[in-house]
Amino acid sequence: MKLRAFATPDTIHEGDLDGACAVVIDALRMTSVAAQAIENGCAGILPVGTIEEAFAIEALRGGERNALPIKGFDFSNSPVEYTAPRVSGKRLVMTTTNGTRAILACKGARRVLLGAFVNASAVARAIMDEEDVALVCAGTLGAFTLEDALAAGAIAEHFSQAEKDDMALAAIRLYAQSKTDLHAALAPCAHCGRLLRLGLSADLDFCLSVDTKTAVPERRGGDWFV
Amino acid sequence: MKLRAFATPDTIHEGDLDGACAVVIDALRMTSVAAQAIENGCAGILPVGTIEEAFAIEALRGGERNALPIKGFDFSNSPVEYTAPRVSGKRLVMTTTNGTRAILACKGARRVLLGAFVNASAVARAIMDEEDVALVCAGTLGAFTLEDALAAGAIAEHFSQAEKDDMALAAIRLYAQSKTDLHAALAPCAHCGRLLRLGLSADLDFCLSVDTKTAVPERRGGDWFV
Repeated sequence: MKLRAFATPDTIHEGDLDGACAVVIDALRMTSVAAQAIENGCAGILPVGTIEEAFAIEALRGGERNALPIKGFDFSNSPVEYTAPRVSGKRLVMTTTNGTRAILACKGARRVLLGAFVNASAVARAIMDEEDVALVCAGTLGAFTLEDALAAGAIAEHFSQAEKDDMALAAIRLYAQSKTDLHAALAPCAHCGRLLRLGLSADLDFCLSVDTKTAVPERRGGDWFV
Repeated sequence: MKLRAFATPDTIHEGDLDGACAVVIDALRMTSVAAQAIENGCAGILPVGTIEEAFAIEALRGGERNALPIKGFDFSNSPVEYTAPRVSGKRLVMTTTNGTRAILACKGARRVLLGAFVNASAVARAIMDEEDVALVCAGTLGAFTLEDALAAGAIAEHFSQAEKDDMALAAIRLYAQSKTDLHAALAPCAHCGRLLRLGLSADLDFCLSVDTKTAVPERRGGDWFV
């Protein structure tokens, strides 16, 4: 396996993902939310770029803008809201500040999966036979975020024999250093601090728990993830 | 001090460097070459984007394309060639695959300095009074490279009190893990491997030696670095 990682969507260049299996990582919180929703029986998730597009789709609506809930939506971007009674058998449209953009940047990939700390091992199992894997960190507003790199490391560490690029190596090394206490490792980080100031520590606890989910949302049939 | 790091030039967005002090890092090998040349008395270095531009300037010419020497140039990109007898008092024009591009991406910064392992502490001294520092990793052909992130860490570790962004934190942590043996840390990396296959292990030894130089090339007067 060739295993690459991209620090942000802006580091993906024309053709980079052709034929590749891409794993989009927005650990705080979009891809964690997606894993939770699919695990709880959600019938499908459609990531869209704008709030207007979300309102045009007949489905439950979830997401955020600058970490805050969107008026008129059924869910914020808090994974704890996406319980089985609320999402089971229902379709969900999502729009978020960073995760959606990263997913759109992977349009050219052969497969697109959504990964996070919560489903790291499940993602590793889902891609183990792939020859060309690209872990795409969503970042925040175009900037690198440590949490996504660490989550990339949590997935990449399963592939000791893979031929890794420098960013995959960096992700693995950063994760090895931090895995025993992800909260502490991320304490100085801007996005973590913002969630805590917004009173979202339960979200942080949820999203920084490794391998609590087995669902791996994957693009199948159009742009829907199931 | 606000201390940011950029994983590659592509992660710099419009306005990001306005008013900032940028340190461009292409540790293997361009910014190491520049530190060596200035330390050995070179009168000024002009980075240019193309070979044609280099030939249009009345100066010594140095650089590479895909790590190989350029026909008709006075120097390759091997720092060991830039000895005092050859560069003292002379002007030098340089064009390289990645370093030059990173320097051009920093046009909007208030100050632009060139940093590497060889002058990490000297760079730290040169920027210690700055309020907004951006460490810009050159990478290779648009991709993140570990050596530049580690060199960013070698500079950033001098600023324990700075308010750091996630990439600066990552660089510091990666460097802390690797500083006792940079050769081993970089052994699995593509760019390192390529230099070794080209028989350039002396360049690697030179470029991975920390704090052997006190010169800090800085843009002063037009686009020349002195």
